[in-house]
Amino acid sequence: MQGLARFSYYLGILSFIAAWSIYIYIKKEPNGTSAIQEHEEMVHKGVISFLKREYFILVLFLFLLSILLGLSLNEWGTSISFLAGALCSIIGGFCGIIAATRGGSRAAEAAKRSGEPKALILTYLSGSVMGLAISGMGLLGMGLLFRYHGGDPDRAGYIYGFAMGASFIAIFYRLGGGIYNNAAVFAADLVGRMETGIPEKGPRNPAVIAVGVGNNVGNIAGMAADLFDSFAGAVIATIAIGATLSITPEFYAKFPLVKDIEPANIRLMYMAMPILVIMAGMLSSFIGIFSVRIFQHRNPARVLRHTILLADGLFIIIVAIIIYNMGMPWGSFWAILSGLLCGIAISILTGYYASGPVIRRIAGQSKIGPATVIISGLAAGMLSACLPILLLCAAAFVGYQTAGVYGIPLAAVGMLSTAGAIITVYSCGPIADNAGGMSEISGLDLETRKITANLGAIGHTTTAIGKSFATGSAALTAFALFTAFTQVAGLEVINIKKPLVLVGLFVGSLVPIICSSLTITSADKVASIIVEEVRRQFREIPGLLEGKDGAKPDPRKCVSISATSALGKTFLPILIAVLTPVVTAFLLGSETLCGMILGSTVMGLFLALLMVNGGTAWDNIKNYIEKGHVGGKGSINHNAAIVGDTVGVPFKDSSGPAMNIIMKLIPVVSLIIAPIIPAVGYII
Amino acid sequence: MQGLARFSYYLGILSFIAAWSIYIYIKKEPNGTSAIQEHEEMVHKGVISFLKREYFILVLFLFLLSILLGLSLNEWGTSISFLAGALCSIIGGFCGIIAATRGGSRAAEAAKRSGEPKALILTYLSGSVMGLAISGMGLLGMGLLFRYHGGDPDRAGYIYGFAMGASFIAIFYRLGGGIYNNAAVFAADLVGRMETGIPEKGPRNPAVIAVGVGNNVGNIAGMAADLFDSFAGAVIATIAIGATLSITPEFYAKFPLVKDIEPANIRLMYMAMPILVIMAGMLSSFIGIFSVRIFQHRNPARVLRHTILLADGLFIIIVAIIIYNMGMPWGSFWAILSGLLCGIAISILTGYYASGPVIRRIAGQSKIGPATVIISGLAAGMLSACLPILLLCAAAFVGYQTAGVYGIPLAAVGMLSTAGAIITVYSCGPIADNAGGMSEISGLDLETRKITANLGAIGHTTTAIGKSFATGSAALTAFALFTAFTQVAGLEVINIKKPLVLVGLFVGSLVPIICSSLTITSADKVASIIVEEVRRQFREIPGLLEGKDGAKPDPRKCVSISATSALGKTFLPILIAVLTPVVTAFLLGSETLCGMILGSTVMGLFLALLMVNGGTAWDNIKNYIEKGHVGGKGSINHNAAIVGDTVGVPFKDSSGPAMNIIMKLIPVVSLIIAPIIPAVGYII
Repeated sequence: MQGLARFSYYLGILSFIAAWSIYIYIKKEPNGTSAIQEHEEMVHKGVISFLKREYFILVLFLFLLSILLGLSLNEWGTSISFLAGALCSIIGGFCGIIAATRGGSRAAEAAKRSGEPKALILTYLSGSVMGLAISGMGLLGMGLLFRYHGGDPDRAGYIYGFAMGASFIAIFYRLGGGIYNNAAVFAADLVGRMETGIPEKGPRNPAVIAVGVGNNVGNIAGMAADLFDSFAGAVIATIAIGATLSITPEFYAKFPLVKDIEPANIRLMYMAMPILVIMAGMLSSFIGIFSVRIFQHRNPARVLRHTILLADGLFIIIVAIIIYNMGMPWGSFWAILSGLLCGIAISILTGYYASGPVIRRIAGQSKIGPATVIISGLAAGMLSACLPILLLCAAAFVGYQTAGVYGIPLAAVGMLSTAGAIITVYSCGPIADNAGGMSEISGLDLETRKITANLGAIGHTTTAIGKSFATGSAALTAFALFTAFTQVAGLEVINIKKPLVLVGLFVGSLVPIICSSLTITSADKVASIIVEEVRRQFREIPGLLEGKDGAKPDPRKCVSISATSALGKTFLPILIAVLTPVVTAFLLGSETLCGMILGSTVMGLFLALLMVNGGTAWDNIKNYIEKGHVGGKGSINHNAAIVGDTVGVPFKDSSGPAMNIIMKLIPVVSLIIAPIIPAVGYII
Repeated sequence: MQGLARFSYYLGILSFIAAWSIYIYIKKEPNGTSAIQEHEEMVHKGVISFLKREYFILVLFLFLLSILLGLSLNEWGTSISFLAGALCSIIGGFCGIIAATRGGSRAAEAAKRSGEPKALILTYLSGSVMGLAISGMGLLGMGLLFRYHGGDPDRAGYIYGFAMGASFIAIFYRLGGGIYNNAAVFAADLVGRMETGIPEKGPRNPAVIAVGVGNNVGNIAGMAADLFDSFAGAVIATIAIGATLSITPEFYAKFPLVKDIEPANIRLMYMAMPILVIMAGMLSSFIGIFSVRIFQHRNPARVLRHTILLADGLFIIIVAIIIYNMGMPWGSFWAILSGLLCGIAISILTGYYASGPVIRRIAGQSKIGPATVIISGLAAGMLSACLPILLLCAAAFVGYQTAGVYGIPLAAVGMLSTAGAIITVYSCGPIADNAGGMSEISGLDLETRKITANLGAIGHTTTAIGKSFATGSAALTAFALFTAFTQVAGLEVINIKKPLVLVGLFVGSLVPIICSSLTITSADKVASIIVEEVRRQFREIPGLLEGKDGAKPDPRKCVSISATSALGKTFLPILIAVLTPVVTAFLLGSETLCGMILGSTVMGLFLALLMVNGGTAWDNIKNYIEKGHVGGKGSINHNAAIVGDTVGVPFKDSSGPAMNIIMKLIPVVSLIIAPIIPAVGYII
């Protein structure tokens, strides 16, 4: 059965083709009035112009880094897999994001012509292009690498670069896209408030297009690249542990095989296992995604949930069959199941926090003033971090108890295998939100707007759930990569009593702290650049300020200069996250590095959950008040909630999610440089 | 020479007598107009009524806990030292706070009659009562315990309870006093804003007295109890490590003795060392404190600094003499010096953050709105946590490199030995602040008000520095107690690769998170109770609202009910901090407990520094704007800064400082229960 793993990339290609076919199908659907078409085209072009700028920087960066990697490791296999990981993420993400920009208008039009079910299906299918394309590229890339290096434990190291490539793309998307997105929102708001007579959402405001672009590149592409990175990281960590596992009699005594297997094949079985598992996930995702047609007449929120649950259910059955057939210890099954359940539990919890009594309570206190909203939001964000952290600990621990060190990455794989279906649903969120915006712009009838508003609200919650799912899976992947690093570096004992390991722990905790500190203020700075450009356009384009016909803003210019500035803000955090483990490893040795990885995970996980959940809470408080509760729009309460929401924007859209990647980047860099780390540091 | 340690408590008694004499001297100084006298008397009575309420709760709590300790450890020595630690902190703190309530009015009057130097001396001496009384009680308590148990390593365990007693008082003072203080500030402000015609600071507002009380019980008593706790924790940790150190030939090879010492005496020497060091600190503090008379004509900010630096300089010379005389390895000297320098460096850094360009930059951005102030303040708070954390790591590491595991607690002792002088200076801060308030109330002449305003500003900065010094010393003490716990529990290796230890790390990080989350919103709740009571008084006391003569508010009632409510809010966080290590130890074993301690230190240290430094930054931004910069009082900028300051109040005055105690409480509880912790947990 494990021979199947060698052909996994065919499944990846199949998935990619499916994604492309769906895109062509969507593209053919009608997309409304000329106003909508024009708006969509502008956003689409803005996205392309943002991505072009990003790719330009990335190509330089990737090229340099792969050469540096090759020279320092003295082999080129890792450089190639590094480039492959980056390329797969870029290609998959590009296809997905192109489809996403086309989805909103078509869903709105479908709502008008055929009602809710059709609108839901179009939203869902637009999201599925991202889900299928990016998970397909993952399976294709890792499948091909496994085909050539997977048969030999000594060459397994060549594969690890894939995860690092994925991490690099993810941090650029999450941070660059996130900062850009926040800045656009701030700028549109500032322009609306400060320049007289221009409505915040009006098409004459060149920053409005930037907001649409930001929503796509920040929320959709960032989330997808992040989950792709976790997906790749979990699989690679499992392969790494499989390749280095000490398969001793004690190991068998503890985790007995179901069948007798030729000893020479056992290691290969452990290495092939994660590939087979993600193949199972891909198949289940197909069925989950296409089941949307069957579920379409139910409540949209349920439809989204059911497609994932169907995929998860099928997946776990296929996994059981695989394990039984291969004769692996049953412990692996429990490890995968624990990761899967952990992901589901985190999603349910976030759903509760995002809509529950917490929001109503804080909204009720907003009359005391903005400070109370801020404090209560922070308190709620802190508290909401606790249960997910405990759940992640439980998943990792169950993984270890049931399958040894191999079980920890396997739990992460279990959480992420159905990435195809998961990314689809979480990509739907911003698309549905977008459909709501589109129907507002084109002034569709009340019935239609009710449908799109409902879709938008569901999309909103889905986006929030997607964010904490991404954080949870990133943390579990970080555990997995940490375990893989200790195995590959041959560290049996990491004694935390040693002061150097302790120092590592604290220094590690500083990395997420510094990166958060640097990035939460970035959006402000980029926003001021956008505002400057908007002012210039109003000044220099005749008739724009007066709203004359034919006077059109130049949103592409606006997108382009702000993209450059946002991407520029990502360099320092990335440099810190990459250099800290390298410097620590060479100066203070590999045990200190382990302390560092753990410190960054502890702090990164907390900051990510605090910022994402706190930011979401503030956003929901504002929305709750805007629906007319506790005073409604324009009341003191509403003003207080706006302050909270403004603080929350960089929390939930850039800095918080960026912590996900920082958590993974540090252990993945460590894993790559493991072969050249000195046993003791140079200065100790 | 080490025989001297047996008589250390005489020095403690001497110090206590000195404190009392100073108090009598201050009490005799004139204290201004009858308005001031009346105000002072009300605050004084309010403080007494707060403390009475607190002691009532504490007595019950301490009594129960000491019995529980005795029964579960099956010996009563620890219970006795636990009560001793609590009692010493209570007595010392009580004397200090009584003197503090008398200082403000006398300093203001002295400013009027004799000018700045005399005002400074009275402020300083009022603070020195706290410094001398509480460090004297520490030396007395620990000296006596050492006298009876210190000669025998097997009985050293009886001493450890002292540190736990100190921790308990500290958390009650920090949290209860802190929450009370915040609530009073909020309530006075709310009453001033919401009830028409009553000025926020007017004497008719019963909440105004509560603010004065809060300043004393929150800022002065809380800080002193916290530093006393660190002081005791550091000394006890050193004794514990001295008692359990494995004094092998390798140890000598690494840390050679200066003289030949009889082998039987070596362990006793290691145990007596910290007592001798704090005796040296006490002597140096005496000289430092009384040097204020020599320095009095200099710039007040310098005087405060110079008294500490003089004490530190003398201290390190005496320590060198002690070490040379005893024949200890010179490494101990370097460990002590590294702690001392770390403390000085942290103080300098905070001075920079509290007054530097950061404040001006954020103040300049305040025109964009409150959200920008919040985000920039959080970013500044995060960034300002980094250097202190690195400094603390460096101090602990230098301690370890120069004196082995024994060097880590020794560094903490070095940082805290001159507690007498340090607590004196940090107690001056709120007293000087108070003197400024007093001269405003009594309408003293412009010249006098300039002097007291200057003193107040310096006091403000000193308070901020005191807060981060307290956090730094708490973290170093936490390291020391952690090391002591691992030694006493006999853990040579704590393998962080084991998933259970990892789980401990994450669970430990949750304790400070949950406690912060619970406490940052407490002040809001208590404030609403105060507001309710103030409204009742305005309703039921005839003529109060109209400001008729003879209609007096009942501030004691106001203090009393809010004290009960504030103290009630401390139970849950204390319970969590105490129970988590106990439950973890019994269910998951001592290695997991080690992970837990470290997790709580990493997170507690970060949250403490973030909240204290962030809160201070917001406070300073408001003050900077109120001085007429970037728009001045009443501008949009000022309103934005007020929101920041309101968020910052619970950050810097209750939740942030409470983290200090949480960090120490967890390892100290672990140290106490070490003898009865099972090797492996009950459920694993």
